[in-house]
Amino acid sequence: MINQLLLPFQFEVFTTLSCEETCHAIKNMIVRGAGSIGATAAFAMTQAFLEAPLSGTLEYIDEEKSRIEATRPTAKDLFRAVDEVYSSAIKCLISGDIYLARKQAKLTSGSIFNRYIEASRLIGVNGSPLISGCKNVLTHCNAGFLGLVDYGSALSPIYHSVTQGNDIHVWVDETRPRGQGARLTAWELQQAGIKHTVIADNAAAHLMSLGKVDAVITGADRIASNGDTANKVGTLEKAILAREFDIPFYVAAPMSTFDLSCGSGSDIDIEYRSEDEVLYQSGVTGDGNMEEILVCNPGSSALNPAFDVTPAKYIKAYITENGVFKPQEIKLQG
Amino acid sequence: MINQLLLPFQFEVFTTLSCEETCHAIKNMIVRGAGSIGATAAFAMTQAFLEAPLSGTLEYIDEEKSRIEATRPTAKDLFRAVDEVYSSAIKCLISGDIYLARKQAKLTSGSIFNRYIEASRLIGVNGSPLISGCKNVLTHCNAGFLGLVDYGSALSPIYHSVTQGNDIHVWVDETRPRGQGARLTAWELQQAGIKHTVIADNAAAHLMSLGKVDAVITGADRIASNGDTANKVGTLEKAILAREFDIPFYVAAPMSTFDLSCGSGSDIDIEYRSEDEVLYQSGVTGDGNMEEILVCNPGSSALNPAFDVTPAKYIKAYITENGVFKPQEIKLQG
Repeated sequence: MINQLLLPFQFEVFTTLSCEETCHAIKNMIVRGAGSIGATAAFAMTQAFLEAPLSGTLEYIDEEKSRIEATRPTAKDLFRAVDEVYSSAIKCLISGDIYLARKQAKLTSGSIFNRYIEASRLIGVNGSPLISGCKNVLTHCNAGFLGLVDYGSALSPIYHSVTQGNDIHVWVDETRPRGQGARLTAWELQQAGIKHTVIADNAAAHLMSLGKVDAVITGADRIASNGDTANKVGTLEKAILAREFDIPFYVAAPMSTFDLSCGSGSDIDIEYRSEDEVLYQSGVTGDGNMEEILVCNPGSSALNPAFDVTPAKYIKAYITENGVFKPQEIKLQG
Repeated sequence: MINQLLLPFQFEVFTTLSCEETCHAIKNMIVRGAGSIGATAAFAMTQAFLEAPLSGTLEYIDEEKSRIEATRPTAKDLFRAVDEVYSSAIKCLISGDIYLARKQAKLTSGSIFNRYIEASRLIGVNGSPLISGCKNVLTHCNAGFLGLVDYGSALSPIYHSVTQGNDIHVWVDETRPRGQGARLTAWELQQAGIKHTVIADNAAAHLMSLGKVDAVITGADRIASNGDTANKVGTLEKAILAREFDIPFYVAAPMSTFDLSCGSGSDIDIEYRSEDEVLYQSGVTGDGNMEEILVCNPGSSALNPAFDVTPAKYIKAYITENGVFKPQEIKLQG
């Protein structure tokens, strides 16, 4: 996987040799983004099957499954991918064939990975007509190919639209506290040669009030059956602002992010992360060294909700590999 | 003046020995906050009278006046304070007495300074009843004693309410890009022993949706006669969110921030500052050294509007030294 903690300052392929190492990579956000977490979690579950001892196998695998599920509680894709690998392979194990179980886990995780690639491609195809007339699209956090192999969710319609010759400029919310917009989305768009400008999260309403935002697209971490979406903290702010300025707000996500067993946003467990993400910032010095600095009053504490819930009423449409539909049409997709 | 660029990491009293040095301090935000800028600009204008040569005096003073006015185009207080010192002292100069003009400039700037102190005290007295039942108040940027001598504008009602025994906790928006909340407001509240928690600007809507914000108070840089307010970028976002969640949004400011000659927010000149404020962050390393680091993708550019305009419809009331009134009542105050 690409080490997303080092981007945009260094490009490093990060390899994990065990389920435990992969869990560490998910928890510490070396890999992040709902789809990429899902694919990685599928491989982690496969690693657990591969490294399970021949005695106490089931207990070992169950423990590792719990370990994977404890890494990031908000992302639906993680649970779904882990369950799919687990349930496909566990049958073989119960019938006594650990080698077949391992083979099955590898097959299933490979299939999950390929489904994500195809879903992200189709999200681009399905979403690009919605922004064909847009000059300026705003996005929050990173929902590009780093977050969902190989084209992303929120960025996939932009990539697709630009390849069709449309001239789109992207406003990139920096996305404090971790700066996924300023670091990852800006890096991705630069790689793709797409015009973009980073803004402080505070500046979105100002640009909207001047008519400089034609559409907003974000990704999602979990979508409830009533159409509420959990996504990176600040998404709710952008959705409310978009409605206030009559700007369409779209959520792009693969079907695997929809959780029909979840009734509404209030049922979604919101992850609170370390206050240090707010109090400190990392980046590179003039000498090119990575450095972490305190950017807040010493002695003050911070609260750091990593996600928020955007109620369905603010979302104009979902963009998925199955097509574009309204929040109230989610149940029909089940 | 307190050097606000070094806070909260170092406390330094910064002295300027000429009008040019004072202008530099305003432009580079060693001093910031509408009221503090107004008081400082009055002293800068006085310095110009004190250092003016005996020949070409008027030309020198007019040039320095333009220099002061060019430092921060958005703050109404700056223009008002400079005009007051200039027009009170220039009469003496025109009648030929430079020494009397210098004395008059000193008297006028001292009087402006004292008026700010009294205004900030009364803003606290007048505003505290509005938040007497509040547990959690959110503020954006810094509108405390650093921004308006000696009690602040937005923070003055909080200071006053706490001295009356109310138990208020303050949510402090970090206020990217310059972090005035995380650095200055958090420092001030810590000095005053007031409970507070820093949050990323993105987290406000999440807290509002959970019922954890009872009121929002901000300062203002310029208030138009129709009740629109220009203030630190992000204020518009918080105002829209507050209305969406039915939370009162107050603007606290001295009467000197009201500009009755300005018809509406669209007439206010919004300052765009260097993109480096978004791309880089400064703070202290583990060794205690001040360091500036790049926090964004190298090669991406940023747009940095320093202010935005909050339309009157989002503002429940103005808190001033003359009392509390609604946006549509501003013209009655003229």
